[in-house]
Amino acid sequence: MLGLASLRDLGELKIIEILERSLGESRRTVVGFGDDVSAIRLPDGKVAVLKTDMLVASTDVPPGMTMRQIASKAVVANVSDLAAKGVRPIAGLVALGLPRNLTSQDIRALASGLSGSSKHYGFPLVGGDTNESKDLTISIALLGTTRKKSQLVLRSTAKVGDTVAVSGEFGSTAAGLKALLRRRKQPDRLPPALYRAVYSPRAELKLGLRLAASGALTASIDSSDGLAWSLHELARASGVGIQINRVPVSKAAVEFAARHRYSASDLALYGGEEYHLVVTVKPEKFRMAQKAARGRLKAIGVVTKKPFQVQFKQAEKEYPIAMRGWEHFKS
Amino acid sequence: MLGLASLRDLGELKIIEILERSLGESRRTVVGFGDDVSAIRLPDGKVAVLKTDMLVASTDVPPGMTMRQIASKAVVANVSDLAAKGVRPIAGLVALGLPRNLTSQDIRALASGLSGSSKHYGFPLVGGDTNESKDLTISIALLGTTRKKSQLVLRSTAKVGDTVAVSGEFGSTAAGLKALLRRRKQPDRLPPALYRAVYSPRAELKLGLRLAASGALTASIDSSDGLAWSLHELARASGVGIQINRVPVSKAAVEFAARHRYSASDLALYGGEEYHLVVTVKPEKFRMAQKAARGRLKAIGVVTKKPFQVQFKQAEKEYPIAMRGWEHFKS
Repeated sequence: MLGLASLRDLGELKIIEILERSLGESRRTVVGFGDDVSAIRLPDGKVAVLKTDMLVASTDVPPGMTMRQIASKAVVANVSDLAAKGVRPIAGLVALGLPRNLTSQDIRALASGLSGSSKHYGFPLVGGDTNESKDLTISIALLGTTRKKSQLVLRSTAKVGDTVAVSGEFGSTAAGLKALLRRRKQPDRLPPALYRAVYSPRAELKLGLRLAASGALTASIDSSDGLAWSLHELARASGVGIQINRVPVSKAAVEFAARHRYSASDLALYGGEEYHLVVTVKPEKFRMAQKAARGRLKAIGVVTKKPFQVQFKQAEKEYPIAMRGWEHFKS
Repeated sequence: MLGLASLRDLGELKIIEILERSLGESRRTVVGFGDDVSAIRLPDGKVAVLKTDMLVASTDVPPGMTMRQIASKAVVANVSDLAAKGVRPIAGLVALGLPRNLTSQDIRALASGLSGSSKHYGFPLVGGDTNESKDLTISIALLGTTRKKSQLVLRSTAKVGDTVAVSGEFGSTAAGLKALLRRRKQPDRLPPALYRAVYSPRAELKLGLRLAASGALTASIDSSDGLAWSLHELARASGVGIQINRVPVSKAAVEFAARHRYSASDLALYGGEEYHLVVTVKPEKFRMAQKAARGRLKAIGVVTKKPFQVQFKQAEKEYPIAMRGWEHFKS
């Protein structure tokens, strides 16, 4: 409507497009908008890798999540993006927007979650900022470094014929959220696997570092926006297509889907908030990658030459996979 | 009350204390919490300087401020802290929390403000994150580098006998805000000097870089929390006292105070949201500093050996200056 569409109509992709176009790049930019991280050349030639991800309680926090878990999830979301690029975080900053009704106990739990989680991933949070806000907000920024750009495993470098693989199974988070939201279950009544997926997600940092160091990957993305979404982003950034022949669904999601008549594939494809890695590998290097991953990679498909098309192939038939997932502002 | 004081009672300092204690430091930390910026040693020995400052509309934005001005102020608040340390920003990230009712025009204005302001200070915003939030939130993180820690002008290194100086005059922002809030004036009816102070603040980056490069400074802080607050922070961090013999009040604030029966000194001391530099200089190097500042430094006092005491001396009498200013959560 005359350029005055509200955010609900615009959607996150359009907003990012407006920002990207406006902010542009500089001579120093190595990786700009459009990948899991950004990167900039330092005066001495090394590359600084930067990431920010903001957690906003009203949209990113499931019911019943503790302050400690909320803080931890904010850290995980940032670390996961560095993990997908094969970059170790060396320091972080945390800016907080805190509602007035929080207690000092809440603040201590928040601090403890930030501290425990950053220590778990081996980096310090060295500075921050506190503010009052209507919406509990945790904005984290991470710094890592690499010697050169080619050490970063980007989204945009998948090649036709590459094997597509994932580092974990999907659907537990979506199943857990559906159980919580639709059936108003208490968190402690969830099956343990669904509870862990929703309340204690982990980033696959060690795995990402080992995979990148193996040199076997051609491209990589973290799956936080959902498996389908991540496959589409990989395809889009690399100018290729992706055909998968299996959907890697977790046992807990299969069980939940069977009991409550959901599609297990849909839970796995369109859920989001799961922090696995989605990677592409030259077929001849898959064993090398698998060794680096200590057996945790699951091959699910192949990179095709049909630009931007993401499909599921079963019994010689191809079904399109929608570019759906967790997109803010579009619910 | 049993450790359950609400944020209103706790105040920002206490919250920061809880965070600091919990987050701690690492071997790599060069500057942790408690200064204008943080700094961390990179693997090659250089020092990465990091800053994050979050703007939250419900508390940080005066009535009538445009989206472009809001975005610009968010950048300025971050740049000002690097300016005080003598560090040039080389790249930034921006995480946005956006209320649903924003229009695409709002987003474009926001992007334009971010872009224009970061370009003005000579660095690119290379990445970001967008979220839905109840409260418009702009969280910026900046990266700079220095060769070694000693190039950073810290808060904690003022010495007894040093001259205390400021890079500008104070009170216009407080006067402008009082005019807006108490008298419900429209922004365009404000005197131009007050309008500029409230709606188009600038960070003194070039000045900060020149002053730091001159080698004449012993300590420095930006004045964004107010002149009195900044003097207290300098004194506290350095374990010294400060005695000032004049309050540098802007002409516009003097006029406003006279007309509306405010104390001009109070406007200048306790206002905040003004982005000047407050520095200490060895007396024998003051001319050198003044030359680097192109005459813009105003000497206002001296560093004393009375720990943490900030005083105003006039006609041989000493008056304590309260540690008041813009502290979130405590209004």
